[in-house]
Amino acid sequence: MELTDQAALTSGSAFWTSTEAGGVPQITLTDGPHGVRMQSSEEDMLTGRPATAFPPAVTSGSTWDPALVRRMGEALGDECRAMGVQVLLGPGINIKRTPLGGRNFEYFSEDPLISGVMATEWVLGLQSRGVGASLKHFAVNSQETDRMTISADVDERTLREIYLRAFQRVVTRSQPWTVMCSYNRVNGVHASQNRWLLTDVLRGEWGFEGLVVSDWGAVVDRVAAVHAGLDLTMPGPDEAGDAALVAAVKDGSLAAGDLRLSADRVAALVAKSRLETTESYDADAHHALAREIAARGIVLLKNDGDVLPLRAEGQSIAVLGEYARTPRFQGGGSSQITPTRLDDALTEITASSSAAVTFAPGYSADENAVVEPLLDEAAAAAAGADVALVFVGSKQETEGSDRDGIDLPASHRALVERVAAANPRTVVVLSNGAVVRTAPWDEAVPGIVEAWLLGQAGGSAIADVLFGRVNPSGRLTETIPLKLADHPSFLDFPGEAGHVRYGEGLHVGYRGFDAREQEVAYPFGFGLSYTTFEYGMPSATVTASGVELTIDVTNTGARDGREVVQAYMEVTRSRVRRAPRELKAFANVAIAAGATETVTLQIPRDDLAYWDERLSRWVVEGGEYHFAVGASSRDLRGAVLATIEADAGTRWPLTADSTIAEWFADPRGADLLRKAFADAAGTGTGIAAQAADPAMLQLLGGLPLNRLGMFPGSPFTEETVQALAAAAND
Amino acid sequence: MELTDQAALTSGSAFWTSTEAGGVPQITLTDGPHGVRMQSSEEDMLTGRPATAFPPAVTSGSTWDPALVRRMGEALGDECRAMGVQVLLGPGINIKRTPLGGRNFEYFSEDPLISGVMATEWVLGLQSRGVGASLKHFAVNSQETDRMTISADVDERTLREIYLRAFQRVVTRSQPWTVMCSYNRVNGVHASQNRWLLTDVLRGEWGFEGLVVSDWGAVVDRVAAVHAGLDLTMPGPDEAGDAALVAAVKDGSLAAGDLRLSADRVAALVAKSRLETTESYDADAHHALAREIAARGIVLLKNDGDVLPLRAEGQSIAVLGEYARTPRFQGGGSSQITPTRLDDALTEITASSSAAVTFAPGYSADENAVVEPLLDEAAAAAAGADVALVFVGSKQETEGSDRDGIDLPASHRALVERVAAANPRTVVVLSNGAVVRTAPWDEAVPGIVEAWLLGQAGGSAIADVLFGRVNPSGRLTETIPLKLADHPSFLDFPGEAGHVRYGEGLHVGYRGFDAREQEVAYPFGFGLSYTTFEYGMPSATVTASGVELTIDVTNTGARDGREVVQAYMEVTRSRVRRAPRELKAFANVAIAAGATETVTLQIPRDDLAYWDERLSRWVVEGGEYHFAVGASSRDLRGAVLATIEADAGTRWPLTADSTIAEWFADPRGADLLRKAFADAAGTGTGIAAQAADPAMLQLLGGLPLNRLGMFPGSPFTEETVQALAAAAND
Repeated sequence: MELTDQAALTSGSAFWTSTEAGGVPQITLTDGPHGVRMQSSEEDMLTGRPATAFPPAVTSGSTWDPALVRRMGEALGDECRAMGVQVLLGPGINIKRTPLGGRNFEYFSEDPLISGVMATEWVLGLQSRGVGASLKHFAVNSQETDRMTISADVDERTLREIYLRAFQRVVTRSQPWTVMCSYNRVNGVHASQNRWLLTDVLRGEWGFEGLVVSDWGAVVDRVAAVHAGLDLTMPGPDEAGDAALVAAVKDGSLAAGDLRLSADRVAALVAKSRLETTESYDADAHHALAREIAARGIVLLKNDGDVLPLRAEGQSIAVLGEYARTPRFQGGGSSQITPTRLDDALTEITASSSAAVTFAPGYSADENAVVEPLLDEAAAAAAGADVALVFVGSKQETEGSDRDGIDLPASHRALVERVAAANPRTVVVLSNGAVVRTAPWDEAVPGIVEAWLLGQAGGSAIADVLFGRVNPSGRLTETIPLKLADHPSFLDFPGEAGHVRYGEGLHVGYRGFDAREQEVAYPFGFGLSYTTFEYGMPSATVTASGVELTIDVTNTGARDGREVVQAYMEVTRSRVRRAPRELKAFANVAIAAGATETVTLQIPRDDLAYWDERLSRWVVEGGEYHFAVGASSRDLRGAVLATIEADAGTRWPLTADSTIAEWFADPRGADLLRKAFADAAGTGTGIAAQAADPAMLQLLGGLPLNRLGMFPGSPFTEETVQALAAAAND
Repeated sequence: MELTDQAALTSGSAFWTSTEAGGVPQITLTDGPHGVRMQSSEEDMLTGRPATAFPPAVTSGSTWDPALVRRMGEALGDECRAMGVQVLLGPGINIKRTPLGGRNFEYFSEDPLISGVMATEWVLGLQSRGVGASLKHFAVNSQETDRMTISADVDERTLREIYLRAFQRVVTRSQPWTVMCSYNRVNGVHASQNRWLLTDVLRGEWGFEGLVVSDWGAVVDRVAAVHAGLDLTMPGPDEAGDAALVAAVKDGSLAAGDLRLSADRVAALVAKSRLETTESYDADAHHALAREIAARGIVLLKNDGDVLPLRAEGQSIAVLGEYARTPRFQGGGSSQITPTRLDDALTEITASSSAAVTFAPGYSADENAVVEPLLDEAAAAAAGADVALVFVGSKQETEGSDRDGIDLPASHRALVERVAAANPRTVVVLSNGAVVRTAPWDEAVPGIVEAWLLGQAGGSAIADVLFGRVNPSGRLTETIPLKLADHPSFLDFPGEAGHVRYGEGLHVGYRGFDAREQEVAYPFGFGLSYTTFEYGMPSATVTASGVELTIDVTNTGARDGREVVQAYMEVTRSRVRRAPRELKAFANVAIAAGATETVTLQIPRDDLAYWDERLSRWVVEGGEYHFAVGASSRDLRGAVLATIEADAGTRWPLTADSTIAEWFADPRGADLLRKAFADAAGTGTGIAAQAADPAMLQLLGGLPLNRLGMFPGSPFTEETVQALAAAAND
């Protein structure tokens, strides 16, 4: 292929299409990830052609049901085929580092395991239809503020265990056709030009076989990008950049093989794409699926006195809050869908109840303005009904900017307070894309339904849960803190002067709340049901491939239901710091009323590992591992210890520069050093004579072995020390 | 001077002496900082000749009285003269980043202002006697764990505002003869080889005129050290290093001028040193001074029902806890002094009371062992007395290792509980070098006296306070948290794999607790008195040199007393993140019973500044500054607003790579961009036509201006963007 054709292939020909060159046709890539956003006209960048608005990841993640997400991927693939889309830009799996993240609604969780599990199924579903996924945004794009310029400064262990971990899982288990690089810099280097990230890790370590596409506008320097392993720069055209690539190959500043590799990857992507469209898709079936996912993603946070489910007969209902009539069903930005239809909760509740349903909007479009007549009207309606449903929420979630707080708007809080005062049987229904603060108003109401952003069928899904047609089984994938300032990220967000320090390190989300022993409003993994479950004692089987946990779970209530059984790991005697609890496995199990199911949780051995910065590798330590099983990260019903064999070759080497404490921490090193000190004591002077003194040893613990020579009379010459180091590692 | 002589001068000739070479005599440098630790024999490195053991910095800092610390410096100078010491290794001013810091007792505070103020006076006092100080440990040596190998990874703003700030103050105001570099690395580079730190900042920016000496054993590479500006490597001899220096100058890898400069600095230090010794010093007067400082450094934390002061007559007293008889009066390591004499609290209390004083040890030497008979004996003694004094504390504080927790040992907690149950008038007297947890046992006792480590006269000082001969006026220079996990440093201490991330950034100590709105046990600046003080309203006068606050403070009780009046600054509309409160000035004022004093607090304009990372300079922003005055960081009695003019030349420049949000945040940039968008809208297509759409602008805020060109029909060519940037900055 001609150099010019190769270069042309590596940038788009327009906003949503690749370039036809060298005999390779063009393909269409368009926004996802929870609907197919085909821009309706060149002029109007914000509006798309009608498509099913599935629930965003905040909701699909809360189902904790990978199979559901796979079906969503399949349906999205069908819609892509019908609209002539070869690559759908999703799934988004960035970690929800802060509740303020404007795009949190597009991401699954604060935890990498559930993020990775859900996204894998999404990709497998989509790609089963011959449409490519674009796993995004790679990597560490956990905020919108300054997203195109900021450097996410994060240590490698945290990168590996938290921010890259879900990407690793999805890449190795589902081979997405494309990975999309993020806008931001990672430790100073633009993701789009980060060879370590795009080539060494993604391809070299994980075996990624597909193409890396840029986020739209993320490339600063085409030549640096291609060298790094970025294959397709979007959007286009970018004739100047194409020419720069050709020139760089000619003058030798870019290896010809780098450009050829990227062009070949574009050609390979196009070759496996299905260029023909299908006639249509089943919009009704997709709406029904959107409803099923939405209902399953709703999290019942509070249900005192069984205020829910509602009775379909004989119970008058006041529905309060404009969101019941005008749903807040999706966030802003590139994922915004023009839905094929739109259910609202008010209509669906009215249809579900044979008794009177009244409505009052409660607040105006200006959510910060508390309008007393609207509150009075709502309170009166609430007072006259058997039960009051208050629809409130947050409308700040959008691509491009982060939220400025987690409180509900003033008018919504006022509505909750007034209605709660008017009717003791008040249920709050929340519409929000990321967590909102529930303290302190949650104490005034017996019921809270976290209904997130639910997509186009959210109205009917809410009614399904409220009336008990669906027994709620959604679980939180992010902690709801008592206040924003409690959050692990609080002191280090959104950064300054081009840098955001990931100061909490590994302690993201529940890992941080648990490490600091903080109270929270609702913990990670939490969610209620209309039935109850009892857990037996777990047992563990350890094999070479990992750990299998088995536990009996019984539905002790009168309704069929689903339980999300969760397993958390603790390694108490680790040689590195670990979070007190890490999610390691979960199962979503349907259990009939009165029935017992035996649940098996598989934890692959790889998932026991931590990233060792000294050895630059994953390490499974030997020793006792504590596995707790329960219904949330703070509702652990039983635990079992398992003894794990260490990986081979994971001993930390000792050097002349290792400290005396490090020498003593290593069995062989301790033996050698103890003997050397004893020998030295025989010489009878200075440091050697006092080396056995506990006070002296406490002082010396931090001393590298090769600095013992500074003490008068020290027998620890450089030769002695080198000999010890050699003996320690031979 | 010969090259070999120059090289020889830059290392020691023995453990505590410099080298005589090139006609320059040798001098003696020895450990401080709260006593002169002259090693008594070459063999015994841990024991020193008798000297006055003054209270360590944890106590002298708690006096909040710079004049007292100056007198201590003078006395230390006198002892140095008597012992033939030319340089005393102190003061230590590292920031107490974590309560676990093994050496916290040697440092003043978690706050850089009070650290710098106190250390300045210490240096001025010492050097007034012709003895040189050694300001240490420069820099960011806030932990003992892995202190010789660890890299303290900290952003520059935090470095400047927190970890270097006290050094800057002391250097510019007192010109210590020497500065001692620390063991650790700072952002990867050994302090001993860090030219930026030792030359660019210390000398170039701050105008340091003295010599930099290594901490003992801190130099890894002599040539790199001399190049960095490290003049004197200790200890010695180091003939191999001397030879390496000569060779490096000869082969040109080290500039001859670098070595000459260091040798000249050693010569200059020796030249101003007083080599003759004086005959003696007044040990009794020094003991009395040690007692005065100790009493003034004691902090009364709790005094419900005026359980204190004790009456000298008619009140029987049970003294419980071995520390009353065998005082814990200093920490371990290089500052450990063989005192000239030693007071104990039991003897002094007995001497102060005409009523019966009983004693029981309460716990054994194994502090983790709860010994029931000892508890029974103590409880019985307490039950039989009018008041019970419980002496407990911590003995973990030492150089070389950090503490493993902040709880009192189990046997001490048990003693407090048993005694409190036996006698409702129980006062706990704490002996500890860094904060210990007081929750939850503090609720069971009406009185708590924080008596730190008090030096050799601590026993009498405690009696002075308990019996009201000294009205307590000590104030906390470090926050006492409810639990260790609450502390800002908790998630990032002590680091791993050679690095400790200062993840809390600026939010060290009370700055972090305040930013997170956390409850604490006792806040920074807190301390009770036997009298009470009322504050008037503060007023502020702004001049070109700073802000002067004036406030009336009235002693409303029946006893003379001292109040520590504290001023905290808040800048609410800062363009950078600031701590909610920063200590900016304080005054220690004696106020007679019933009297009113007008207190004036000077805040130099320099202390209003933050370090701007974009401009690499200190910046005083314009706007309203909020100054609150009170008795602690959380007991603010009144506040005043002051309007401050901005420094010239501190506008952030706009570039083609600045984001649209940054352009709009700048008045001139906003004008230019608004006009450009309006012009572009006239062209009528694509992005230009939609630029005014609020949703689009929200999406675009994070976009660097030079990436607008990617949108179809964008009129923002590279030329347009460059022209805008030029216009914005001309």
